Amino acid sequence: MPTAAEPVAESIAVLLQRSFGRQGALMAWQARLQNLRQGACEIVLPMSSAVTQQHGFFHGGVIGAVADSVGGYAANTLLLPKSECLTAEYKINIVAPGVGEALIARGQVLKLGRTLVVTRADVFAVRDGSEKLCAAMQQTLFVIPADNPSRTS
Amino acid sequence: MPTAAEPVAESIAVLLQRSFGRQGALMAWQARLQNLRQGACEIVLPMSSAVTQQHGFFHGGVIGAVADSVGGYAANTLLLPKSECLTAEYKINIVAPGVGEALIARGQVLKLGRTLVVTRADVFAVRDGSEKLCAAMQQTLFVIPADNPSRTS
Amino acid sequence: MPTAAEPVAESIAVLLQRSFGRQGALMAWQARLQNLRQGACEIVLPMSSAVTQQHGFFHGGVIGAVADSVGGYAANTLLLPKSECLTAEYKINIVAPGVGEALIARGQVLKLGRTLVVTRADVFAVRDGSEKLCAAMQQTLFVIPADNPSRTS
Amino acid sequence: MPTAAEPVAESIAVLLQRSFGRQGALMAWQARLQNLRQGACEIVLPMSSAVTQQHGFFHGGVIGAVADSVGGYAANTLLLPKSECLTAEYKINIVAPGVGEALIARGQVLKLGRTLVVTRADVFAVRDGSEKLCAAMQQTLFVIPADNPSRTS
Repeated sequence: MPTAAEPVAESIAVLLQRSFGRQGALMAWQARLQNLRQGACEIVLPMSSAVTQQHGFFHGGVIGAVADSVGGYAANTLLLPKSECLTAEYKINIVAPGVGEALIARGQVLKLGRTLVVTRADVFAVRDGSEKLCAAMQQTLFVIPADNPSRTS
Repeated sequence: MPTAAEPVAESIAVLLQRSFGRQGALMAWQARLQNLRQGACEIVLPMSSAVTQQHGFFHGGVIGAVADSVGGYAANTLLLPKSECLTAEYKINIVAPGVGEALIARGQVLKLGRTLVVTRADVFAVRDGSEKLCAAMQQTLFVIPADNPSRTS
Repeated sequence: MPTAAEPVAESIAVLLQRSFGRQGALMAWQARLQNLRQGACEIVLPMSSAVTQQHGFFHGGVIGAVADSVGGYAANTLLLPKSECLTAEYKINIVAPGVGEALIARGQVLKLGRTLVVTRADVFAVRDGSEKLCAAMQQTLFVIPADNPSRTS
Repeated sequence: MPTAAEPVAESIAVLLQRSFGRQGALMAWQARLQNLRQGACEIVLPMSSAVTQQHGFFHGGVIGAVADSVGGYAANTLLLPKSECLTAEYKINIVAPGVGEALIARGQVLKLGRTLVVTRADVFAVRDGSEKLCAAMQQTLFVIPADNPSRTS
């Protein structure tokens, strides 16, 4: 996926990181939001006992949660400060076991509509410093006014 | 979804709970596996700071992780002890905010193939004791020999 | 899937059949819309050379098109006459080859929102008069005012 | 999506076109398979009354059928002559109405496994010669021996 898009403005970066810092699930996993560009961003997730399945790999549901989040924040780079988004749905293929010292998820906006935003994300497992494709996601987000959690779709 | 299927044998219940107990992510969330039937089961997830998004609701990715898991264990009720399964892919719609004191996810096998198993799951948010549909999932699982994590699809 | 819902009013049935009759793709396949209930309906598709893949079975894409349509019309049973819907996305598992003299697709609304409607559909292949599950779909629809095709999501 | 991959061998191109020519649904729509590369290909679908929905646009289900097919043939460029594939599942977002004189679908293999192949496809509506993204698909295919339609997954 291209990452050639322009970086977001500093004021938008502050809003994105503040929102990210309020996500209890991602904070509990020590996830980081980085490389904030217009329509694209990354989330890095270090390996820990809180994110494994029964074989000690990254749990498929955790991989999904990170992919879901990176798609949402990719959309937020274009929506904030006026709007933000909630996940309507996502679909994820796990294409290889999540084996390694970290996951890196890269999200990108495919289509920015007034009501719906469509994104894709790729998740890579980082092992001994090299990346391997681990999961591929496609997602639909629902645009809401910023700081208004009580919507109904 | 119907839950009229027969309960699993006690020996299978032990294997299912043992496998579930090794899932670090689900243990960190204090999730419980219950109501084990042939081709169906439930996971209950209590609310905690480890499972929230920025508005204090259940995180969409956590909802996805629970749905993914309950589909996998529904398949495992039919596959164990000889085989188990890995997630090939899943798709989830979040249809209402995850607001409440717990989530209850109900998974069911739609089609048991030799190589692939297709499941559906419904996730309900429990608030003041009443259930509301929160998410709907559809999933494809890949059958592997039991206790053999090093497969490639 | 339950089909115990109440039949739609006769005036709504007329609108649904009129809309269905304008769908060139479905007409070319001689598909029929039937069993119109509040939040549920069926489409029957007879076998013909226009709907096959390379082995003479129903083409997976045709199965998807029928599933997509039956979900949309299930939503329309609740939306018309004021609104109708366009497909935002769908996901379909083909669980068995589409072998037989007809397909019967059954769609049902899971969640009716103001902007989005979520449905599921099951598609059965009918062979020598008996039904076999052939595909399972989950779908998101976008609500628009009736007779207004020029929306942007 | 990149199209820089090497063209397929002439013998493989013959097999791909022969298989495509046996697909009744795609033939009825006058679809063409082109730009055959290792892990990627295109399908072009001209507008006709056989492919429309009620507003005269390309039917969403037809868009899905073309996306499903192009993903499958992208996989077949790598699988033939020894193997071919059947669709296990696909998920498609319709991101803009299918308005124009033709559709062009571009499919690409993301992951080639022994049993499963994961692909993505983008579908563009061509209007007055310029392309606009109309749909985005992600798909799982099941590998079977070539010319053996009677598998069970």
